[in-house]
Amino acid sequence: MAKMVKNAAGRIVPVEINGKSQTPYQGVGKYIPTGMKAAPPIRSCADYPMDGNKIVGSLQEALEKAGLKDGMTVSNHHHFRNGDLIMNQVFDIASEMGVKGLRWFPSAAFPCHEPLIEHIKNGVVDWIEGSLNGPLGDFASKGGMRGTGVLRSHGGRWQAIQDGEVHIDVAIIAAPTADEFGNATGDRGPSACGLLGFGLADSMYADKVIVVTDNLVPFPCIPWQIQGQNVDYVVALDKVGEPEKIVSGTTQLTKSPDRLYIAELTAKFVKAAGILKEGFSFQAGAGGTALAFALYLKEFMIEAGIKARFIRGGSTKYLVEMLEEGLTDYILDGQTFDLDGVRSMRENSGHINTSPFTSYNWHGKGNFASMLDVVVLGATEVDINFNANVVTHSDGRMLHGIGGWQNCLFSKCTILPIPAFRDRIPVIVDEVTTLVGPGELIDVIVTERGIAINPKRTDLIEATKDCGLPIRTIEELKAEIDDLIGGPPTKPKLTDEVISVVKWVDGTVIDSIFRIER
Amino acid sequence: MAKMVKNAAGRIVPVEINGKSQTPYQGVGKYIPTGMKAAPPIRSCADYPMDGNKIVGSLQEALEKAGLKDGMTVSNHHHFRNGDLIMNQVFDIASEMGVKGLRWFPSAAFPCHEPLIEHIKNGVVDWIEGSLNGPLGDFASKGGMRGTGVLRSHGGRWQAIQDGEVHIDVAIIAAPTADEFGNATGDRGPSACGLLGFGLADSMYADKVIVVTDNLVPFPCIPWQIQGQNVDYVVALDKVGEPEKIVSGTTQLTKSPDRLYIAELTAKFVKAAGILKEGFSFQAGAGGTALAFALYLKEFMIEAGIKARFIRGGSTKYLVEMLEEGLTDYILDGQTFDLDGVRSMRENSGHINTSPFTSYNWHGKGNFASMLDVVVLGATEVDINFNANVVTHSDGRMLHGIGGWQNCLFSKCTILPIPAFRDRIPVIVDEVTTLVGPGELIDVIVTERGIAINPKRTDLIEATKDCGLPIRTIEELKAEIDDLIGGPPTKPKLTDEVISVVKWVDGTVIDSIFRIER
Repeated sequence: MAKMVKNAAGRIVPVEINGKSQTPYQGVGKYIPTGMKAAPPIRSCADYPMDGNKIVGSLQEALEKAGLKDGMTVSNHHHFRNGDLIMNQVFDIASEMGVKGLRWFPSAAFPCHEPLIEHIKNGVVDWIEGSLNGPLGDFASKGGMRGTGVLRSHGGRWQAIQDGEVHIDVAIIAAPTADEFGNATGDRGPSACGLLGFGLADSMYADKVIVVTDNLVPFPCIPWQIQGQNVDYVVALDKVGEPEKIVSGTTQLTKSPDRLYIAELTAKFVKAAGILKEGFSFQAGAGGTALAFALYLKEFMIEAGIKARFIRGGSTKYLVEMLEEGLTDYILDGQTFDLDGVRSMRENSGHINTSPFTSYNWHGKGNFASMLDVVVLGATEVDINFNANVVTHSDGRMLHGIGGWQNCLFSKCTILPIPAFRDRIPVIVDEVTTLVGPGELIDVIVTERGIAINPKRTDLIEATKDCGLPIRTIEELKAEIDDLIGGPPTKPKLTDEVISVVKWVDGTVIDSIFRIER
Repeated sequence: MAKMVKNAAGRIVPVEINGKSQTPYQGVGKYIPTGMKAAPPIRSCADYPMDGNKIVGSLQEALEKAGLKDGMTVSNHHHFRNGDLIMNQVFDIASEMGVKGLRWFPSAAFPCHEPLIEHIKNGVVDWIEGSLNGPLGDFASKGGMRGTGVLRSHGGRWQAIQDGEVHIDVAIIAAPTADEFGNATGDRGPSACGLLGFGLADSMYADKVIVVTDNLVPFPCIPWQIQGQNVDYVVALDKVGEPEKIVSGTTQLTKSPDRLYIAELTAKFVKAAGILKEGFSFQAGAGGTALAFALYLKEFMIEAGIKARFIRGGSTKYLVEMLEEGLTDYILDGQTFDLDGVRSMRENSGHINTSPFTSYNWHGKGNFASMLDVVVLGATEVDINFNANVVTHSDGRMLHGIGGWQNCLFSKCTILPIPAFRDRIPVIVDEVTTLVGPGELIDVIVTERGIAINPKRTDLIEATKDCGLPIRTIEELKAEIDDLIGGPPTKPKLTDEVISVVKWVDGTVIDSIFRIER
């Protein structure tokens, strides 16, 4: 077991992960990287077909030509979310080829990837390095992987690839439309999923890039969200994904009266704080409460005659309506969360395709996240220092990825609207099970029992002091909630075995996730 | 003086240029690169303004903050062509700052940059590495620079930056529209010049990137042809360029009856050879004859009811008309040559912004140039082995850049329509003054005295044998032309001092340009 140290947040983290030495978290903005970005090999057109036709007969042929072998890293994007039809095939083929010890580096894994558990057990895959949602997270929590998981934000994944922390040998890009040269787009075709931004770094930095499509068009495929100049092979299959499954349970409007109330309080707070003004910007996640928040905000915008300059997506039909009704100039979209988002990206010139490079990468010359006037995010736990958790539950199980969550914390006002309880377990705790977001970046907590403003944000406290909203200290909120339940929750029983770490946006290790009792 | 060797084309080239060792040309497709691409330094958002505002007060302040100092390389794009208003200012400021020994690395220099001659004389700039058109070429031809010029194609410039042959310290991106974060576009604003593709590599690979604009818009500037995530500073000036001057003498339709006839013959050849078919593609340069060719071709397309899949620009009003009349699905445009091209890029969703990466880079996984069905280009000289020259005149003076010319030679059929004489000097010669394009890639020569097909292209010879066009051998053509003039032209008097080299698309040295007698 690797040596453990206490990082700047007081969390115990390993100094080495999967054989690579690590930098412990040093505080927000404290770690300044040195050196040069990673760079892929120089290629020559002499080694590629002059007529531009890179089609090979099958996915297996592409993997063989790409030189897939033991110990390699295979990556993919997750724009099909729970409707991906490619990656299980990839690892089935790898298994048939007799390849062992792969690292799977998806931008996220979903319940549809549960068959990977067998491939971990049989040795084809050693570990998964990426967001683990649902069954794979549960499997990893119990110590099922032969390597340490690494949870990164969307921006952190770009940073890790860009900085050379993760070298991708073979990238698989499932593409709803592509040409034989490898230009590809997600915004059209029978399996249209919107955009392919989570695969952009993969296409730019991987040694070998395979585009898999079910809709070949004559060159040129326009738009070319993925550029054929980065692609080695193109495979045509019958179906690459089920776009209807990109809509998951987390992307539906809440019907809970409590959560609707929290959403309304959040929108009222935004208005009261003076954030709601002409040309402002906001981002709301795709959770049910965040969607409801956007609808309340929309009402206030219409009442006040205010137009946003831009809204950041995950796009949904609610954001698309705002664009089409003229309530914003642009949607800057990183991920379409429903089919209205897909359609809008194809049809509306103001619905803009972004990538983690533009939106979130901390190791660039700025990114979009810090320009947002207000962002509304979820959390599984928050502590009295405003530190927040989004990856583990209070029982210690790792069940969620980070998504863009850490990156979004850099907005000018970060609000977490959360219920006071989940399954009768208080959400405000003394100390978060896993530290994912440092409290200094989290400005406001909104619960059905009141709003707590981070004491650091004296400007927000001042702006809202006479607004009539139920503003309280986080200690008051916590005490009231604990009283109702009869005391603070019991801590989960965890082993001292690290099954995964959480990276901060700069690649440092902010916390460890420990194995739960099996 | 560096050691000289004979390369695979039999040309004498230096093994070292400006202190860097070189690879002599080895033949088409023969040199296969190794190693990794260049990569810029890893940055941190902690070092950039969190609100995204990168505006500094003046160009001088930006250059100072960028750390401009002796011996650095400063680059820019040439989308304003002869209407650039920035680069003379940059070197005037460098002079005031007392900086010496700079290398200027433009994608091309124009007559408007004649004041640079003074900055070379006074030591601010040592040499210019880029296309030298007009007075700067003449100055260099006479040995005026304190370094060896390096002529590269558009694709070769990308290759050189990407492969680390040329490291850019400070890139200047003149932008007709930009936001304070550095997102920039060329397709709109009072100085709209179309696109900024020639500055894309500069923005991605330079240590420091300065966007200079005369049209600041609120974030986000859409489209973001240049991404703010690559930009360090933004400067707002009154005027960055004179777009009316992007139309130069070479982008006007010829009125010469001889050249119109050559253009017509070329179009007839394309038709006779069976190239003109549904879904075909073509590229014609912006010279007067090439423009006339496109108009004749258009007539044939309409007659035959044929639509192109794509046309490659340099766009002009003639290509825009074809797009708007439904004669092509797309214009894939690398450079707008007139204001109709600018307007179309802004307005037409089928008018697509490309870069040398997508179009021309030989050290990628393919590029667009080799997919073209036919390309029509100019030349200053052609020899009896179909080798061609585009950078020097028969008197040895270096007066033109290469542009995309070398890259375009990889099309499926490359045609050079050229007059038999220029100023009573024959254009078909025994041996070109400077070898820029290897004869094996040049398929057809069209003159007013007949058409010569490269003997290697037996398919084209067969396809056109009964077409009734005046097809002859190149030897016959040359003999007839020489007879008319009273013998072959005298060779220019050149010294043995290398004032510039010509790179092939793979970075190897294909030929030397020697100093003319002063």
